[in-house]
Amino acid sequence: MSIDRVLAYLDSHRDEHVEQLCQWLRMPSISSQSDHKADVVRAADFVADELRGLGLKVETVQVGDGNPLVLAESEQLPDRRTLLIYGHYDVQPVDPLDLWHSPPFEPVIKDGVLFARGACDDKGQLYAHVKAVEAYVKTGTELPVNLKFIIEGEEECGGPSVYVFTENNAGRLACDAVVISDTSKYDENTPALTYSLKGLAFMEIRVHGPGKDLHSGSYGGVVQNPANALCEIVARLKDDHGRCLVPGFYDEVIELEPDEREAFAKLGYTDALLQQETGAPSAYGEKGYTTLERMWARPTCDVNGLVSGYGGEGAKTIIPAKAVAKVSMRLVPDQNPLKIAEAFEAYVHSICPPGVTCEVVNLHNAGPVLVQRGSPMMQAGVRALEQGFRAKPVFIREGGSIPIVGTFQSCLDAPVLLLGFGLSTDNIHSPNEKFDLVNFWDGARTSAILLQEAAR
Amino acid sequence: MSIDRVLAYLDSHRDEHVEQLCQWLRMPSISSQSDHKADVVRAADFVADELRGLGLKVETVQVGDGNPLVLAESEQLPDRRTLLIYGHYDVQPVDPLDLWHSPPFEPVIKDGVLFARGACDDKGQLYAHVKAVEAYVKTGTELPVNLKFIIEGEEECGGPSVYVFTENNAGRLACDAVVISDTSKYDENTPALTYSLKGLAFMEIRVHGPGKDLHSGSYGGVVQNPANALCEIVARLKDDHGRCLVPGFYDEVIELEPDEREAFAKLGYTDALLQQETGAPSAYGEKGYTTLERMWARPTCDVNGLVSGYGGEGAKTIIPAKAVAKVSMRLVPDQNPLKIAEAFEAYVHSICPPGVTCEVVNLHNAGPVLVQRGSPMMQAGVRALEQGFRAKPVFIREGGSIPIVGTFQSCLDAPVLLLGFGLSTDNIHSPNEKFDLVNFWDGARTSAILLQEAAR
Repeated sequence: MSIDRVLAYLDSHRDEHVEQLCQWLRMPSISSQSDHKADVVRAADFVADELRGLGLKVETVQVGDGNPLVLAESEQLPDRRTLLIYGHYDVQPVDPLDLWHSPPFEPVIKDGVLFARGACDDKGQLYAHVKAVEAYVKTGTELPVNLKFIIEGEEECGGPSVYVFTENNAGRLACDAVVISDTSKYDENTPALTYSLKGLAFMEIRVHGPGKDLHSGSYGGVVQNPANALCEIVARLKDDHGRCLVPGFYDEVIELEPDEREAFAKLGYTDALLQQETGAPSAYGEKGYTTLERMWARPTCDVNGLVSGYGGEGAKTIIPAKAVAKVSMRLVPDQNPLKIAEAFEAYVHSICPPGVTCEVVNLHNAGPVLVQRGSPMMQAGVRALEQGFRAKPVFIREGGSIPIVGTFQSCLDAPVLLLGFGLSTDNIHSPNEKFDLVNFWDGARTSAILLQEAAR
Repeated sequence: MSIDRVLAYLDSHRDEHVEQLCQWLRMPSISSQSDHKADVVRAADFVADELRGLGLKVETVQVGDGNPLVLAESEQLPDRRTLLIYGHYDVQPVDPLDLWHSPPFEPVIKDGVLFARGACDDKGQLYAHVKAVEAYVKTGTELPVNLKFIIEGEEECGGPSVYVFTENNAGRLACDAVVISDTSKYDENTPALTYSLKGLAFMEIRVHGPGKDLHSGSYGGVVQNPANALCEIVARLKDDHGRCLVPGFYDEVIELEPDEREAFAKLGYTDALLQQETGAPSAYGEKGYTTLERMWARPTCDVNGLVSGYGGEGAKTIIPAKAVAKVSMRLVPDQNPLKIAEAFEAYVHSICPPGVTCEVVNLHNAGPVLVQRGSPMMQAGVRALEQGFRAKPVFIREGGSIPIVGTFQSCLDAPVLLLGFGLSTDNIHSPNEKFDLVNFWDGARTSAILLQEAAR
């Protein structure tokens, strides 16, 4: 069978593919640091050249003064299904540098593990798809589907290019499914298909009191203290079990299906494991849901930062003029971030204590995502993972947000397949980012098989 | 009468005395900055030399590696009452320097007002007493009382020298009253005798959760968030009207006497004035007490600082590992700071939400002070102020703490007369510290008269 030839090619070119990936990883394409602009462009060119070399039609597009979007297409035949593969070539900053065991942009392989910034997030995972295409092309095997790539360079800095482009070019990106490898396997031995992501409404509460910091001796007990007032507001955001008290918060929440709860339970995630992963003294949260159910499928309301008054060593006796809390709500389908942000703002104003004024700002939003597990394309993903990783995959949800997924879903009206090749322990965004080579290779296998399964 | 001669001397030497004070103010004796150590010592020598020049027996004592304590004594006759005058020659730092209209250590006189760091706090106020002694000595007028001085250089940096010395040398400091000019008049036209100071129990609450900052997407809803938990704790410290909920908090509070409440009411302090002074949107606090009663005679519980997680611009979606609140309670007679600190700690532990651990640290304490208004020495103070400032003085309380007052009271068993010569608007601890020259001169008059009135 032709797929065997393709997979054999991948097998026999493992070391060469790792060597090529390392070349890409040596480019410090940190998108949030403007002095790396040239590296960012080099990294874009690298993947553009690769895809061009495989016979794809490649175009590099710049939206405003954004980083290049690399667009690539194989020949588009009308009777084939079409997959759009998304990834990003930019990487996170590397601080704190002194915690790295080897320089972040000098890839090192140790015991079958590749260490470098971007090894997993997302150069390594994306490159697995590129190598799958190469295997088809170099073995003279016809691509079973039409392929499109959209590869961006602003994922780590929250840039708008890919959103603007997608919204304005839905026709050009039209496809039967979007494929993204920017998530994780469930664990080392279990590949996973992520079918739901949480959304986000990120708020800032600013409580204003006196015109300046006051001496707490001179004015204690006679004016409202903004820091105390802020704490009262935050304390009223949730009940004793962590259930959010913003009116209407749960109105649009889609409850878990019985089969989802059953599947989650089978994964055997334990509170002991949670404690080990986090160092938290115990699990905690809303009654009536298991830890995994809360983690993956219940909306949250967390303080991300508190700032007020004096934070240094020792004592300084002031009544602060101002107190600020950053609060983010992770949302689940079908909560609407804008509607939730509005309800939050109204609720905070309604509980603001007397003697201070209060300002609520909505800093950032992302819609939650739910992909139908039963769709033919999702089933193709399941089969590809099972053969690629030689293990039965599981359906998982994710508590984090990948905002572009919501944009793809709504603009392209296609299911998004989140096929994670990495591990949650790969230290993405942290020192010593890594990617197990076996996951890189099995990822490439999975991608190659997916092209075939998607055509079925 | 001999006092007329003394006051006439003060009158005819006004400009000279201001010139001498300016010399002292040019020494940047900032005790909290070690590079000013030489200036601190120079400022100590300055006042030691002055007192020595007036015929007092002067000794400079160093406790450990602390700043010099200047001790001075006139001839001690057994049949005379004894006054101990306390003050400090060190000053606050000067930041932010760019807000000063003239350099802080280059004294400037403008429209009868002297601008310089230390002009009021406390060189200027203390120097008024020195000049009163000079007037007696230079006019050949016998001192009506035995005089002692204890002048320290660690008031603004919270150093221990004066406490250690007082506790170990109570006999040497024995007196009938302690005189301190480190407070304020009630307003421009009304001299005041402060008869009560609040105490302090300064606490830090540290809430610990996960072992490191967590991704709020990955772990939101499954572990307790230390910042949310801290807010819940702080919210439970006070009820909706600012009454402290720490059990036993009010048990030892001495309620205001009816005549005190009447006297406070007569001062005519208004909430409009409070709003003007503070910029706060409104007055706020415990029911059943006027604003001035709360300010001067009710204990408080204020957050002085909040620190947790991300405080920078924009969004960072973490669950912080830790959250800290600095909380100070201003205490009134007869609350005991250590007992209150203990009750606070126990209460905070009792309301600590599940899923986090909580640590309570007592950083700093000071006892509250109440001096009997009717004592002969206090009445001598009233008469001195009335003649010195040519206006009827009022008895006031103060919401701030002067910890040494409690130590003097308990070690020396003598009333402490807090005769404030400055104004609450003198910008002590702030840019453009000032001292109205008329208050400097009237302060010196008051001191001269006090020596006589205390002997009656």
